[in-house]
Amino acid sequence: MNSLSAPIAAPDAAYYQQALSRQAQLTKPPGSLGLLEDCAVRLAAMQRRAMPKLEKIHISIFAADHGIAEEGVSAFPQVVTMEMVKNFAAGGAAVNVLARHVDAYFEVVDVGLLQPMALPNVISHRAGAGTANFSRTAAMNDEQLTIALAAGRAAVERAVANGADLFIGGEMGIANTTSASALAAASLRIPAAEITGAGTGLNAGQIDHKAGVIDSALQHHQAALQTPLDILKTLGGFEIAALTAAYISAAQQGLPVLIDGFISSVAALLAVGINPGCVDWFFYGHCSAEKGHARILQALNAQPLLNLQMRLGEGSGAVLAVPLLQMACRLHNEMATFSQAQVSTA
Amino acid sequence: MNSLSAPIAAPDAAYYQQALSRQAQLTKPPGSLGLLEDCAVRLAAMQRRAMPKLEKIHISIFAADHGIAEEGVSAFPQVVTMEMVKNFAAGGAAVNVLARHVDAYFEVVDVGLLQPMALPNVISHRAGAGTANFSRTAAMNDEQLTIALAAGRAAVERAVANGADLFIGGEMGIANTTSASALAAASLRIPAAEITGAGTGLNAGQIDHKAGVIDSALQHHQAALQTPLDILKTLGGFEIAALTAAYISAAQQGLPVLIDGFISSVAALLAVGINPGCVDWFFYGHCSAEKGHARILQALNAQPLLNLQMRLGEGSGAVLAVPLLQMACRLHNEMATFSQAQVSTA
Repeated sequence: MNSLSAPIAAPDAAYYQQALSRQAQLTKPPGSLGLLEDCAVRLAAMQRRAMPKLEKIHISIFAADHGIAEEGVSAFPQVVTMEMVKNFAAGGAAVNVLARHVDAYFEVVDVGLLQPMALPNVISHRAGAGTANFSRTAAMNDEQLTIALAAGRAAVERAVANGADLFIGGEMGIANTTSASALAAASLRIPAAEITGAGTGLNAGQIDHKAGVIDSALQHHQAALQTPLDILKTLGGFEIAALTAAYISAAQQGLPVLIDGFISSVAALLAVGINPGCVDWFFYGHCSAEKGHARILQALNAQPLLNLQMRLGEGSGAVLAVPLLQMACRLHNEMATFSQAQVSTA
Repeated sequence: MNSLSAPIAAPDAAYYQQALSRQAQLTKPPGSLGLLEDCAVRLAAMQRRAMPKLEKIHISIFAADHGIAEEGVSAFPQVVTMEMVKNFAAGGAAVNVLARHVDAYFEVVDVGLLQPMALPNVISHRAGAGTANFSRTAAMNDEQLTIALAAGRAAVERAVANGADLFIGGEMGIANTTSASALAAASLRIPAAEITGAGTGLNAGQIDHKAGVIDSALQHHQAALQTPLDILKTLGGFEIAALTAAYISAAQQGLPVLIDGFISSVAALLAVGINPGCVDWFFYGHCSAEKGHARILQALNAQPLLNLQMRLGEGSGAVLAVPLLQMACRLHNEMATFSQAQVSTA
């Protein structure tokens, strides 16, 4: 796990200042492009470029199954994880449509489905046949955690090799909001009820049951929940571990990251717990309708770009925000300055 | 003005139901695409198509000067209106960059700059050399109002002739947040202080002055402020009148409209006051940082797509939201259904 703690350089302060100064010269009232100005300036600092660019978008969807699904915590049957992976491979899921719209490179990684699937466009990097049911035992063992983390790092290595300008991670795994809620409750040391939501569509009684399952597990594993990696091993999903490692690895390699919704943000929170410098490399696509997401974003001091009451996962909320970041770059690069356009200043 | 009250057909209820039913069959938890589902379903009903599309985007920027600028209500000098029109013509403003990103048709209409400008890509449809200073006298006379309204209708006629799928109106005019705040205060019968903000960058004392100028004018013109058209004539800008007529005209012709920020939303509020049915044809791009915008959106019962703390105008917040509406359409049209993808339901 050494590589997870390898140092992360901060984005370049000189490019940051240079970009800020350019923003002040563009033909608009100062600050009138709001969050888009901040996005462009931060990207310039990350990419060490006067003119930031977001042309090559890399999307990796990590899929895995969850033993905790046995506890009746999801509105959908567990088989849907594998069925949706087939749907990803065929191009029919929401994230496929969005990836096509932004012309992104798209891949699916099997980090631990119940069964291996021979599908085109699905990379096999399996840590096991689903996690163990964490209401009884740790979700994974050390070896499995190592494999799942390596799956995330390998995805980032492919992104870097492809010359990606932005990394987006997505996830699929029936019952994974239960795992993510448990990880968040353990990390923030709060009761499950504060962070547990409807997932794919539970009613109020079912959400109570889900929070109860999580609280019992937190009680049961109390002694083991010390470090972020302990928490991940005990309560995590293989796909969430992969996302966590991918986010750290991207930051280590200077590749900007766009975080998706609740589950991805929990992975981001764990990543920051493991190696705090990675947070400087994160953008946040949206605030999800899933109950706990706003709380996680707050813990990350994050300003999400969208709030469309979405709760789909798959990376969808991040991919939707890509055009905003691209337009932020183009505004920064292509707008005339006051002197170029001979426009008077205030 | 008869054409402003010509009837507006409601979007098609049968296509609405058909689109709603398709959304329920797509491979995602019901409702998990949030506002995007509503956008796609409403567009299907407006376009009378099972598969809505947003390919041709028509952007008309209406520019005009304001007599009220004499009262020292703007952070920028009045000459900036004409300088920015030159910037639009040369392609250097924010809205130009955004229009290129979404491959939109873009035009600028001079509805009443201080002086006519001979520029390529600028359509002349002038109601006067700027409005009168409404702190002393009505901003425009009946003939000027008629011309400004006609400028909006003519833009929509061009959009329809070009086969546009979506109409976006933008505006440019130094001091036009003062006019828009006065129009809003008169329409909602609230004190100016509740709705008056920083515009292009006033400080607190300057905002107080601006609100004072507006309150005095409201007092002065009290007897004349009866109908929305009276209000528009007395306090309006030529570009705001053009936007108002354009929104009504688009709805009358069955062309969906995407509303921009504070000034555009005040025009939308006036449009709804004149012909209420037009509201069914509106989408809202964003909630601006300009103080009064949230209040206007509330009065319109609007759900804006973005909230990025922008306050630029020019139509910029609407054009930024175009990719979201386009992706909403593509998700609706291209996602696999549960039965197509053989995915189990909840």
